Amino acid sequence: MNLGEIIEQIQPIDPLWVEKACNRTAQLAIPPRALGRLHDLAERLCGILRTLEPVVTSKAFLVMAGDHGVVADGVSAFPQEVTGEMVKNFLRGGAGINALARCVGAEVMVVDMGIIPDIEPPREGSQRFRICKVDRGTANLTRGPAMSRQQAEQAVLQGFQVASELFTAGTHLLGTGDMGIGNTTPSAAVGVALMGCAVEQMVGRGTGINDEAWRKKREIVQQALDVNRPDSKDGLDVLAKVGGFEIGGIAGCVLAGAYYRRPIVIDGFISTAGALVAQALCPRVVDYLFAGHCSQEAGHRKMLEYLKLEPILDLRMRLGEGTGAALAMGIIEGAVRVFTEVLTFEEAGVSKNQ
Amino acid sequence: MNLGEIIEQIQPIDPLWVEKACNRTAQLAIPPRALGRLHDLAERLCGILRTLEPVVTSKAFLVMAGDHGVVADGVSAFPQEVTGEMVKNFLRGGAGINALARCVGAEVMVVDMGIIPDIEPPREGSQRFRICKVDRGTANLTRGPAMSRQQAEQAVLQGFQVASELFTAGTHLLGTGDMGIGNTTPSAAVGVALMGCAVEQMVGRGTGINDEAWRKKREIVQQALDVNRPDSKDGLDVLAKVGGFEIGGIAGCVLAGAYYRRPIVIDGFISTAGALVAQALCPRVVDYLFAGHCSQEAGHRKMLEYLKLEPILDLRMRLGEGTGAALAMGIIEGAVRVFTEVLTFEEAGVSKNQ
Repeated sequence: MNLGEIIEQIQPIDPLWVEKACNRTAQLAIPPRALGRLHDLAERLCGILRTLEPVVTSKAFLVMAGDHGVVADGVSAFPQEVTGEMVKNFLRGGAGINALARCVGAEVMVVDMGIIPDIEPPREGSQRFRICKVDRGTANLTRGPAMSRQQAEQAVLQGFQVASELFTAGTHLLGTGDMGIGNTTPSAAVGVALMGCAVEQMVGRGTGINDEAWRKKREIVQQALDVNRPDSKDGLDVLAKVGGFEIGGIAGCVLAGAYYRRPIVIDGFISTAGALVAQALCPRVVDYLFAGHCSQEAGHRKMLEYLKLEPILDLRMRLGEGTGAALAMGIIEGAVRVFTEVLTFEEAGVSKNQ
Repeated sequence: MNLGEIIEQIQPIDPLWVEKACNRTAQLAIPPRALGRLHDLAERLCGILRTLEPVVTSKAFLVMAGDHGVVADGVSAFPQEVTGEMVKNFLRGGAGINALARCVGAEVMVVDMGIIPDIEPPREGSQRFRICKVDRGTANLTRGPAMSRQQAEQAVLQGFQVASELFTAGTHLLGTGDMGIGNTTPSAAVGVALMGCAVEQMVGRGTGINDEAWRKKREIVQQALDVNRPDSKDGLDVLAKVGGFEIGGIAGCVLAGAYYRRPIVIDGFISTAGALVAQALCPRVVDYLFAGHCSQEAGHRKMLEYLKLEPILDLRMRLGEGTGAALAMGIIEGAVRVFTEVLTFEEAGVSKNQ
């Protein structure tokens, strides 16, 4: 299947099912909409899944990893080797996303979308690993495009493919995660290119750079945009010129959620950059997205506002990996349980309001 | 044990354990404090439990129920019968707190602190019920004290007692919940009396009253304060004159958490009114409190600010029952898992930042 065929098949969610779900909420033995956003979440799930009995028990994460040529210019507080080291840590089950995914009962699949080293698939343990290496890291986007247009399309299609496999194997709720030293730089560039905002609004401190490195990072993002002149109307062009392989993989996951009519929980800044690319390719995908949290990374809130997504959590987190989305899955599961398990006024024998 | 003996035994948390926990956080293979509030939550738990291996697997809720004489004055959108009907619904497992407690693996114990009807303990099912009925509803606080000082002390001690039993049976994390038609009115009066703020800031719409009833509710709260003149320095006097039996029971739970050095997750407006009473009796209890969420009920944010507690969630909820605390338990468990399960930089073989 090519990208055009995928996009053509994506439908908006069904407002009739959302309406039916709202009517159901009104019957629950709860004062009118007193559980606030839990009702909204459950009703949108009903619209996505076209049912009044939404199920989110089978949860999974795709943690997309990629390396970035721009790291040579000193945009990160951590050395490039950490991308591969952290991939190994994910496979050992020792990272933040592993702990939080276990907490909500979600499986973690790590995907090498284009990291520099070759990591061996683990012989044991419950973590799964897929190699979809588009290349050994992107080129430095301050000198020219991060990747070719063909590679950009390949990254998106590979992301679509691994997510598709999870959905067809029964995953109800998919979270996106990322790993890639330096990846707040391409994510900021993608944000500026697609949203048309100022560089200053999008560039944050990532894993924790100092003032001088932060100033330089803003210059680098500006330079990337000046050198490459990405076409803001063309998601694939933006991804190719100033993006990253894991960002493309995440965009593919988002397309797969919409294609298979399954909810996707996006994580922070990098995941949302991936969602922006997917939205540029097919605006209807936003119907299928839940914003897990608002990251502390400057620019994330603006991205979410652009996509008209309200974050579920705001816990001053800025780790990535999918950690914010994992915590939010617990809230989404709560919303579903309220919707499906709370008795109606009639069933419970509770008098209605006057 | 009397109240004075309990209060005397309550110690502040140990800052040394919090410091040790911060040092541990710094070693985890995570950029400096990149999981934001998750680190803060875990470290405070370490301070409470005096360990670097906090455990929160055994979770429970005490849902304190009481009736209110002031309902005769039309302060609620729901009839008084709903208190008892909802207690039955809790015991059937069909309410919001049941669904959300199941979601985080918490047990629910319902406590009749002073509802009007007699509810039979359930013959089957997993819900537990305790009868600690101080009286059949409070007196109307606009005419005189809601209860006697002796009843106020009894309510607090009964709450302390049921919570104590849960802690000694192994509960690690206790959530507070409430049920009582009309109970936002005494809670607002307690807030005004203890915090010294304006009535307008504390009185909200509860389960959903109209403008006219809202105006009347503000007058009623003012009248309750004028008629009773509670002593803002005396938590028991405030509880007796303008409180409720379930509010006293919650105050007792809070004291028990601090006494047994166990974390307590408070829910919304009514639970926080209970916490205010406990704080007036013993300011050190606040060390042991986690604010599950910020309710939509006007005044709740102000109460939390007064207690210097930052809510974990803000999902536009205003149900009570413990629902906000239940969702927050999932976040607290996530914080503990990160703290105890994420490998250190050294263990994971991940390079540190430069």
